[in-house]
Amino acid sequence: MNVGEIAQRVGGEVAGDPQLQITGVAGLEFAGPNDLTFADSPRAVERIAATRSGCVLIPAGTASPGRTTISVANPKLAFIRATEAILPVPQAIASIHATAVIAASACLADDVVVCAHVVIDEAVTVGARTVLGAGVVIGQGAAIGADAVLHANVHIYPGVCIGNRVVIHAGTVIGADGFGYVFADGRHQKFPQLGRVIIEDDVEIGSNSTIDRGSLGDTIIGQGTKIDNLVQIAHNVRIGRHCVIAAQAGIAGSSTIGDYVVLAGQVGISDKVRLEDRVVVGAQSGIPTGKVVRAGSAMMGSPARPLASFKKVYAHWMNLPNLAKKVERLSRQLAGQSKSDGS
Amino acid sequence: MNVGEIAQRVGGEVAGDPQLQITGVAGLEFAGPNDLTFADSPRAVERIAATRSGCVLIPAGTASPGRTTISVANPKLAFIRATEAILPVPQAIASIHATAVIAASACLADDVVVCAHVVIDEAVTVGARTVLGAGVVIGQGAAIGADAVLHANVHIYPGVCIGNRVVIHAGTVIGADGFGYVFADGRHQKFPQLGRVIIEDDVEIGSNSTIDRGSLGDTIIGQGTKIDNLVQIAHNVRIGRHCVIAAQAGIAGSSTIGDYVVLAGQVGISDKVRLEDRVVVGAQSGIPTGKVVRAGSAMMGSPARPLASFKKVYAHWMNLPNLAKKVERLSRQLAGQSKSDGS
Amino acid sequence: MNVGEIAQRVGGEVAGDPQLQITGVAGLEFAGPNDLTFADSPRAVERIAATRSGCVLIPAGTASPGRTTISVANPKLAFIRATEAILPVPQAIASIHATAVIAASACLADDVVVCAHVVIDEAVTVGARTVLGAGVVIGQGAAIGADAVLHANVHIYPGVCIGNRVVIHAGTVIGADGFGYVFADGRHQKFPQLGRVIIEDDVEIGSNSTIDRGSLGDTIIGQGTKIDNLVQIAHNVRIGRHCVIAAQAGIAGSSTIGDYVVLAGQVGISDKVRLEDRVVVGAQSGIPTGKVVRAGSAMMGSPARPLASFKKVYAHWMNLPNLAKKVERLSRQLAGQSKSDGS
Repeated sequence: MNVGEIAQRVGGEVAGDPQLQITGVAGLEFAGPNDLTFADSPRAVERIAATRSGCVLIPAGTASPGRTTISVANPKLAFIRATEAILPVPQAIASIHATAVIAASACLADDVVVCAHVVIDEAVTVGARTVLGAGVVIGQGAAIGADAVLHANVHIYPGVCIGNRVVIHAGTVIGADGFGYVFADGRHQKFPQLGRVIIEDDVEIGSNSTIDRGSLGDTIIGQGTKIDNLVQIAHNVRIGRHCVIAAQAGIAGSSTIGDYVVLAGQVGISDKVRLEDRVVVGAQSGIPTGKVVRAGSAMMGSPARPLASFKKVYAHWMNLPNLAKKVERLSRQLAGQSKSDGS
Repeated sequence: MNVGEIAQRVGGEVAGDPQLQITGVAGLEFAGPNDLTFADSPRAVERIAATRSGCVLIPAGTASPGRTTISVANPKLAFIRATEAILPVPQAIASIHATAVIAASACLADDVVVCAHVVIDEAVTVGARTVLGAGVVIGQGAAIGADAVLHANVHIYPGVCIGNRVVIHAGTVIGADGFGYVFADGRHQKFPQLGRVIIEDDVEIGSNSTIDRGSLGDTIIGQGTKIDNLVQIAHNVRIGRHCVIAAQAGIAGSSTIGDYVVLAGQVGISDKVRLEDRVVVGAQSGIPTGKVVRAGSAMMGSPARPLASFKKVYAHWMNLPNLAKKVERLSRQLAGQSKSDGS
Repeated sequence: MNVGEIAQRVGGEVAGDPQLQITGVAGLEFAGPNDLTFADSPRAVERIAATRSGCVLIPAGTASPGRTTISVANPKLAFIRATEAILPVPQAIASIHATAVIAASACLADDVVVCAHVVIDEAVTVGARTVLGAGVVIGQGAAIGADAVLHANVHIYPGVCIGNRVVIHAGTVIGADGFGYVFADGRHQKFPQLGRVIIEDDVEIGSNSTIDRGSLGDTIIGQGTKIDNLVQIAHNVRIGRHCVIAAQAGIAGSSTIGDYVVLAGQVGISDKVRLEDRVVVGAQSGIPTGKVVRAGSAMMGSPARPLASFKKVYAHWMNLPNLAKKVERLSRQLAGQSKSDGS
């Protein structure tokens, strides 16, 4: 592809050489003379001069004289689109490996890819063009949508429903029993874990994460939500659409999360919490049991407070040694005064 | 089963129709006319009227006029017992899958279930009726008890001992080397990790958790203890009986934990800590190296303090901006007084 | 081996019986009459008298009269060396299991051990004497060095490079896509994750950890670095040499970590952080986005501060209720004074 064709694809305007051949993509610092790259801020545009990049996607209204550029509204988004065109992901060839163990009643659509040592139990359905990586295990009655990718050693427990275009990275476990016990007669007795997990369309889940099945209801992950590595989602949790849940965050039982919520890394959400739409929770913060957080709030701390309040209190916290000194001084002054008053 | 038979089984008293057929179980909000459900508080009992549930287990001393109920001392526990009767878990049919790889010296008891692609190394023993899910790997000389269930892709390292009725969910790793090094000659040199892991009877462990083998002694998980997903238990840790360890908690090397201890989600226990019986540690709290926490204490914070003290200090912490203002005011008053005193 | 031979091997000096046969190693409390053990502090040396240990490695300059001892500069290091001699790790016999699935273009060096159900994709290279545990999956074009050990169910994604003598414990995932999205048109759109992971020589990684591939550049783990269980390392992170990263720590995207850095358990490093050489971060601490921490600093808290400052502020924090009382008292005193002044 040449620069002109890329500009057309991403709806941008070329400055420089539209005939330049582009064969790869790279970050600004690594890009060579035939690589496309991007600069998504005026500051990044300034750094273009120092690079070897052949062509740079830049924000509309900026320029890099003497370089070949394509100006667009959103350079990073245009870079995604251009990469899809320059480096198309090779389509896996439909095939079922001889070592896969597939139950007689399983129903696989056309053009699926089933890699080595996959195990598919009775009454499972798998949608068209879905890829099951090596060692994937799918339990009885689970349903996997079309165009999904389950990487190696993913384990789907019985009855779990996975939507279309869902991507699940290696080692993730969906649908294990929730952690529910009743303490009686000196021991913890297991509460039934009979619900399902429902993963809606376009969800992506990282590696070695765990999403437990509901106890009596279902655990639900809404459409387009993205979940990172080593994330824990407990039984009966309901997560809305287009949320972002960063690595090592955990959500305890029966909590409800709205749409467009962002949880940063290592966040802990206790049980029966309700986070309304567009809530943002800062890294390592914790939301206590039963708490309701209103739409659009930013929260920080463990236990968490509204971000502005956290920042204010935190500033005072750092200043505590000075405050204590000041109180000491006041105390001495007052004692001195009392004496000088003869009282 | 009908309501009368269920009442008899759980030792409860029927109000309403003892002949009503019960075919399923459900939560209060989802239950239909042939489902059994439960209400474990007076507040939940009030909500029965608004539901479609056929029969509700309620606390003795409460009532829901016009509905079929069974009153019992502990409705949630009775629900567990009733569910076992209404929806018995189907017994897996004893079988050894043709793709399993089993060493000649391994000794499997009668009626085991060995699923596809399981690998069992030399000198392993597996007790009666134990189920090994697809892709389970059991290292040399490990011993697995009777009636245990190891879900898909669980990995048991050599020499590990697993008790009877232990349940381990998918992807969990038991017996990997502990994290022990001696820093010398500019690099970290590995300390021997020669001990075992001993998991006693009736333990349940969630998905993708990790329990390391002892370095010179053993790592021990006591009878009836329940461990959630993504939990880390380091080398030489000893956990007592009937503890509850929630998701993403971690326990560092050589710490000792008594009986009936509760660790909430994302708790961190440093190395060489001792938690006596019935200690409770709140979510995201951290217990520092070498600390001893007395029996029955509740702890909170990072580093953790006794809960009552934490709450008190936390309340003052939130009030810090006000305290600082007050000190400022006092300071001004005192300065003004000094002036008016002519000093 | 006898005591004299061990002393010679570790460069130590015998007191007592150099002919005593040593057949095992153990911790001080467990050691029997034919076990070697060690005491690495004067306090530990005092406890020798109460043990059954046959021979104890002790620090030069200490003594345990009446017992057989070997005095050395570093008893714990000498114990590592002696253990290697007394209990040599049995060399696995080179073999490729019949159930392994190996692509035609994969290139395996001599004397590799490939266990059951391993899957090796096209263009993979594996170095001499490397061991691939049961169920290991290696993606297209990945390169594994010599004398490496990948335990069961480790998953190496395409293009990842693993050095010599690297050890990776069960269930760990190397090279999954990083967590990068651009939010546009109401949904999160995936940014290309095209980089590699490079693991240098002598790295050891625990169980169920996750290391993501770079987006446009590479994720790099430097020589000799040791990583514990359930650790998350995001895309484009660069970690130097001989670092120690304890369990459940997480490092977010594009952060850079120098040499000899220590991260304690459950530490969170946000994105674009730079930790210079020899930084130490205390358990559960968090380093905020973009922060630079100077060489040799110790950090504590969430968000983290220099350790000395954290300790000081923390002491004042615990004393907050008293400070508040003192301010209250001053306030009353001042009010009383004002009154007695007749103002």
